[in-house]
Amino acid sequence: MRPVSIVGIGSTRFGRHKETPLDALAASACRDALADAGIGAPEIGALYLGNFIGGVLSGQEVLAGLVGHQLGLPLSAPCSKVEGACASGGIAFRQAWMSVAAGLCDFAIAAGVEKMSHAGTARVTEALNCAMDQQRDGPTGLSFPGYFGMAARVYGEAHAEWRSHLTAVTRKNKANGLKNPLAQMGEDVSAETVEHSPLVADPLRLYDCCPISDGAAAIVIAADEAVKERLSRAGAKAPIRIAATVQTRGAPDVASIRNLLSFEATVEAARQAYRVSGLSPSDIDFVELHDCFSLTEILDAEDLGVVPRGMAGAWTREGRTRPDGDMPINVSGGLLAKGHPVGATGVGQLYEAVRQLRGEHPNPVNDAAIGMTHNLGGAGVVCTVSILKRADA
Amino acid sequence: MRPVSIVGIGSTRFGRHKETPLDALAASACRDALADAGIGAPEIGALYLGNFIGGVLSGQEVLAGLVGHQLGLPLSAPCSKVEGACASGGIAFRQAWMSVAAGLCDFAIAAGVEKMSHAGTARVTEALNCAMDQQRDGPTGLSFPGYFGMAARVYGEAHAEWRSHLTAVTRKNKANGLKNPLAQMGEDVSAETVEHSPLVADPLRLYDCCPISDGAAAIVIAADEAVKERLSRAGAKAPIRIAATVQTRGAPDVASIRNLLSFEATVEAARQAYRVSGLSPSDIDFVELHDCFSLTEILDAEDLGVVPRGMAGAWTREGRTRPDGDMPINVSGGLLAKGHPVGATGVGQLYEAVRQLRGEHPNPVNDAAIGMTHNLGGAGVVCTVSILKRADA
Repeated sequence: MRPVSIVGIGSTRFGRHKETPLDALAASACRDALADAGIGAPEIGALYLGNFIGGVLSGQEVLAGLVGHQLGLPLSAPCSKVEGACASGGIAFRQAWMSVAAGLCDFAIAAGVEKMSHAGTARVTEALNCAMDQQRDGPTGLSFPGYFGMAARVYGEAHAEWRSHLTAVTRKNKANGLKNPLAQMGEDVSAETVEHSPLVADPLRLYDCCPISDGAAAIVIAADEAVKERLSRAGAKAPIRIAATVQTRGAPDVASIRNLLSFEATVEAARQAYRVSGLSPSDIDFVELHDCFSLTEILDAEDLGVVPRGMAGAWTREGRTRPDGDMPINVSGGLLAKGHPVGATGVGQLYEAVRQLRGEHPNPVNDAAIGMTHNLGGAGVVCTVSILKRADA
Repeated sequence: MRPVSIVGIGSTRFGRHKETPLDALAASACRDALADAGIGAPEIGALYLGNFIGGVLSGQEVLAGLVGHQLGLPLSAPCSKVEGACASGGIAFRQAWMSVAAGLCDFAIAAGVEKMSHAGTARVTEALNCAMDQQRDGPTGLSFPGYFGMAARVYGEAHAEWRSHLTAVTRKNKANGLKNPLAQMGEDVSAETVEHSPLVADPLRLYDCCPISDGAAAIVIAADEAVKERLSRAGAKAPIRIAATVQTRGAPDVASIRNLLSFEATVEAARQAYRVSGLSPSDIDFVELHDCFSLTEILDAEDLGVVPRGMAGAWTREGRTRPDGDMPINVSGGLLAKGHPVGATGVGQLYEAVRQLRGEHPNPVNDAAIGMTHNLGGAGVVCTVSILKRADA
C-alpha cells in the first residue's frame, strides 16, 4: 500500500436542510472538497458515499451514482454507497483510502450524507432502529436511547458522581460547538439546564442526546506521489497524511455484549490503528470521537486508550478534555453539539481533524500535529478509527 | 495488486424464503461458501455484503455486521454493506477482491442477499423505485417496468420482429432455468404463452419481466499465494482466477440517457474488463448477464461486445445464445428464470460462472474455460463486469 494523504475537504453546515435534496447536499460538500483540493472532477477515480437511511426516509438509494453523475465524474469511476449505520462515513473514508493506497486510482472522494429532519422525530426514531438487530433486540422494543440509558445505569453503579460526569461532557461539547460555525447547536449551557432537561431514556436527558441532523461532508484523498508537483504551486494547502484507517466489528445485540461500559469493536480498532501507525496514545494530540450520547464519549475515550480506564468522567469534569487540556476531545462540538447527520458524521470528524492539523480550526488546539477520529455504528457492531498526521510530524 | 482466485461458493435457492430472516439467509450462503472452500471463519479478513432494500422492506441495516457476528468472523474483520441497487452484489465482489488483491487480507467473503416476497408486489414496486433518481424521474410516475417498456418501444422501431426476439430470450432462459435446481421459475414455455401473458408495461408482458425473489449467494476469495499449499490436499477444488472485476457509472435519469438501446456504464465496463484481462470478446466462452427484462439481455449482449451490435435478437432466435450455441448467455436461467433477489444477483451470477468453470454446472457449456458476468444497477447508473478463468486457461 502506498502513502496517501487528504488534500481537500468540504462540508455543509450540520443542522436543518429541509429544502435541499439528499443528492444535492452530498454533491455540494463534494464540490467544496474538490475546490479546496484544486482537483477537477475528471481526475477522480472513485467515489465512496456513506449513507444510512436515505432509502427509508427519502426513498433514495443508488445515491453514489447520482452524486457521481452530478459531479461529472468519469464513467470509469466506481461510485458506491457503503453502509454501517452511524459508522457509514468512516467506512466510506476507509474504502476511498483503500482504492488509492492499492494503486487503483490516484484521487478518490470519500463523502457522507444524511437527511433526517424532514421526517419528524417519531419516524426518525423508528428508522434509526434499522441499526439494531431486528431478530433479537427489535421485538423487545429497545431503542438506541434505551440502550445507552441501560449503559448509563450500569455506569452509575460504578461511579457515584455519574451525573456530574455526563453533564461535564455535554457542557464542554456544547461550548466547543459555539465556536464552530458548522455546528447545529452550540450553547453556553448551565449544569442546571442539562440536569433538569426532559428525561429521554432514564437516566439520560435531552441534553445527554445528540440532535436529529441533516448534513454532508467530503474528503479528497490522493496518492502522495500524485500530488508532489501540485504542492509547489502557490496557495496549495499542505496534505494531511493518513497514518492509519481501520475498521472492526463487534457484537450487534444486547445479549452478546459482555460489558455495557466498553465497545469491543473500539478496543480492537484502537489496537489496530496504533499498530498500523506505529504510534501510541501519548502521541495523539486530539480526538474527534463518537459522542452520540454524553455517556458514549466517556466510554469511547477509555476504549481508545487516550484516557485511563475509569477516569474519563473525572478528566472531563476537571477540564482535561477541553481544547486547552491534556487530551482535547471533540473540539468541534462532537455529535452532541455539531450534530449527527448519521452517514456524514464519520467524514465530518475527519473534516474537523484536517482543519485542526492545517491550523485552520476556529477552535484551535495548540501545536496539533496528530489527531484521531472514531466513528461507531449501532451499539458497537462496527467501528472505524483513523489517525491523521501533519506531513512534518 | 496480487493474483486472486475464487476458492469457495455458496447459494440458497432463489425464490421464496418468507420464514427465514434476511441475516440468516445471508449467513447460510456464507457458511456454504466457507465449507466449499474448506476455510474457517476465523481466517476471513473482510466481509462485503451487497443488499439493496433491507432497510425499507425489512427494517434492517448494518446487515454486514450482523452476518459477520453470526459467522464468528474475527473482530478485526471489516464487515460492510455496499449498495448500488441491482448491482449491489457485483460491487460486494469487487470490494472483496480489492481487499485481498491489495494485500489487506488473504481471505475475504463477498455475499449478497435480498428478501422481497414477504412485502407483496405493490410495496416491492415502490421500494424498487428507490433505485430511480427521485428528484428527476420520481415525480413523473416512472417505474422500472415503465422505463424498460419505453426502451422496448424504441427497440421495436428498429426491429420489426422485436416480439419474436424478446420471446426467444424468455423461452431460452426459462428452459435453462428448468435445468438449474436453484432457479425460481424455470419452465418449458410456448411462444403463445409468453406473447399472451398479461401486459405489465406496454409492450412488455409478464413473461418479459423477472420475478420478485428472495435469496442469498456468497463467494470466498483468496490470494493465490495463500492457497497454494491447500491445493495439494485431497478433495480441494481448483481455484477460479479473477482475470478482471471492474465497476463503472452511467446516467441515472431518463433525460440524461442518450440512447435507450445501450447502457454507457456497460460499454465502459466491458472495455475496461477486456483491457485489464488482456482478453477480447472472442475469448469469452459464456456470459451471465443482467436480464431483468427480456429486452435487457439483448441490449447487454451487444453492449458487452459478445454479439455484434443489432444482432442479439436474431442470434437468440437462431439459438446461438443457447448453452450449445456460439455464445451461451444465461445458462443459469438468468434473472428471468433463476430469479432476481436484487442484492444477491451479482454474486449469484459469479456462483453460476464458477460452477460452470469447475465443470459442476447442471446445465454445462462444453469446454468452458473463460466466463463473464455482468450486473447492472437501476437504469444503468452503475455496472460491474467480471471475467473469470480456469487456472489452466
